[in-house]
Amino acid sequence: MTEPTALDRLIEALRCMPGIGRKSAQRIAYHLLQRDRQGGLRLATALGEAMDKVGHCNRCRTFSETDICPLCASNRRDRSLLCVVESPADVYAIEDAEYQGLYFVLMGHLSPLDGIGPEELGLERLSAILDEGEIKEVILATNTTVEGEATAHYIGEMVKKRQLRVTRIAHGVPMGGELEYVGSNTILHALAGRREF
Amino acid sequence: MTEPTALDRLIEALRCMPGIGRKSAQRIAYHLLQRDRQGGLRLATALGEAMDKVGHCNRCRTFSETDICPLCASNRRDRSLLCVVESPADVYAIEDAEYQGLYFVLMGHLSPLDGIGPEELGLERLSAILDEGEIKEVILATNTTVEGEATAHYIGEMVKKRQLRVTRIAHGVPMGGELEYVGSNTILHALAGRREF
Repeated sequence: MTEPTALDRLIEALRCMPGIGRKSAQRIAYHLLQRDRQGGLRLATALGEAMDKVGHCNRCRTFSETDICPLCASNRRDRSLLCVVESPADVYAIEDAEYQGLYFVLMGHLSPLDGIGPEELGLERLSAILDEGEIKEVILATNTTVEGEATAHYIGEMVKKRQLRVTRIAHGVPMGGELEYVGSNTILHALAGRREF
Repeated sequence: MTEPTALDRLIEALRCMPGIGRKSAQRIAYHLLQRDRQGGLRLATALGEAMDKVGHCNRCRTFSETDICPLCASNRRDRSLLCVVESPADVYAIEDAEYQGLYFVLMGHLSPLDGIGPEELGLERLSAILDEGEIKEVILATNTTVEGEATAHYIGEMVKKRQLRVTRIAHGVPMGGELEYVGSNTILHALAGRREF
C-alpha cells in the first residue's frame, strides 16, 4: 500500500467534482467497481468527449459544440428579445418556462476582486449584438446577489445608452411559497413590486 | 436540441453515481467544463483505468489490482487473526483503528431474496482459509443490520465447527456519543455488554 493504486487514483480523481469529499468519492468508486463497471466506462467516455468537444457559442457564450449554439441558430425564436443570465444552468431553467427569445450568457458576474470585469463577461460581444439593431428589449435575469445586482445595473446602463427597452425579472414571493418562510428582503421586494388586483 | 449533445451525454452518464440526481449531475458537468477540464480529463482516465484493472484478491476478495492484495501478501500482519467484513470500505475503517490481522471481505451479506447465498459471499474460499490451520480467531465485523447479523451467525457456526475462537465486535454507545441521542437498541446492547469498571 505504498504507491497509489488505480483505486486510490480513482478516489482522488473523483474529488474534482464539487460537493464530493473523500467519503463520497470512496462510496462512488466502490459502487461503480462492484455494481456498474459499464456505467463507469460510459462515464469515462462521456467525460473525455465533453471536455474535448464542448466549447462556447460565439454569439451567446453558452456551452456549445458548434460555433453558434442551436438556440442562437434557430429561426423559431423571437430575435427582438434578449435575456441576460449568469450561467448555462439559468438558460435551462428559463427554457422550461417557455421563453421564446434569445439569451446572452455572462458565464459569471462582475467581481472586480476576482479580476472579473466587463471583458471577462464578454460585454463587448453583447455591445456588438445590441448594435446589430435586431434586439428591442433586454431582460436582466442575473441572480439577486450583490454581484448579480451590480452586473444587472452595469448592463442596464449599456442598454439604456442605446435607447432600448431594459427590464429586470420580478422578485417576490415564489409560487407555492408560504409567506412565513420567505425572508423579509423578499417580502420587501414583493411589497414594492405590488400590482393592481 | 434534438439529439443529445456531448454535454447531455455527460450529464446522463454522471447519474450512474449513487446519490447524484439530475440537478447535481448538471452542476458537476458545468463546474468541470467551466473550471476544471484538466480534472475532468484526469477523472476520465482514472475511471477507465480502474474499471479495467481493479479486480478482486483471490484470497480475501477485496478490490485488488494484483491476484493477491498487498494486505494478504504482507508478512507484517498477524496471520492468526481474521476479521470478516461486508465491504472494502470496512477494511479501510478498521485499518484506521490499527488492526494488525488479516481480512475476509464478503462483498455483501446473506440475502436469499436477492439470490445472495453462501456461494456469492465466497464462503467456500473462507472455509479453505480456515482449513489451512493458520487462523486462530475469527472476528465477525459485519454490520448490525438483520442481514449482517444473520451473516455473522452463519459464519460463526462455520468457525465453531472447526473449534476455532470466534468473536463479534462490541456494540454499544459510540465514543463521543451522547446517551440521549443513542437509540434504545444500542443502549440495550451497551447494558448487556457492560463490564467491571
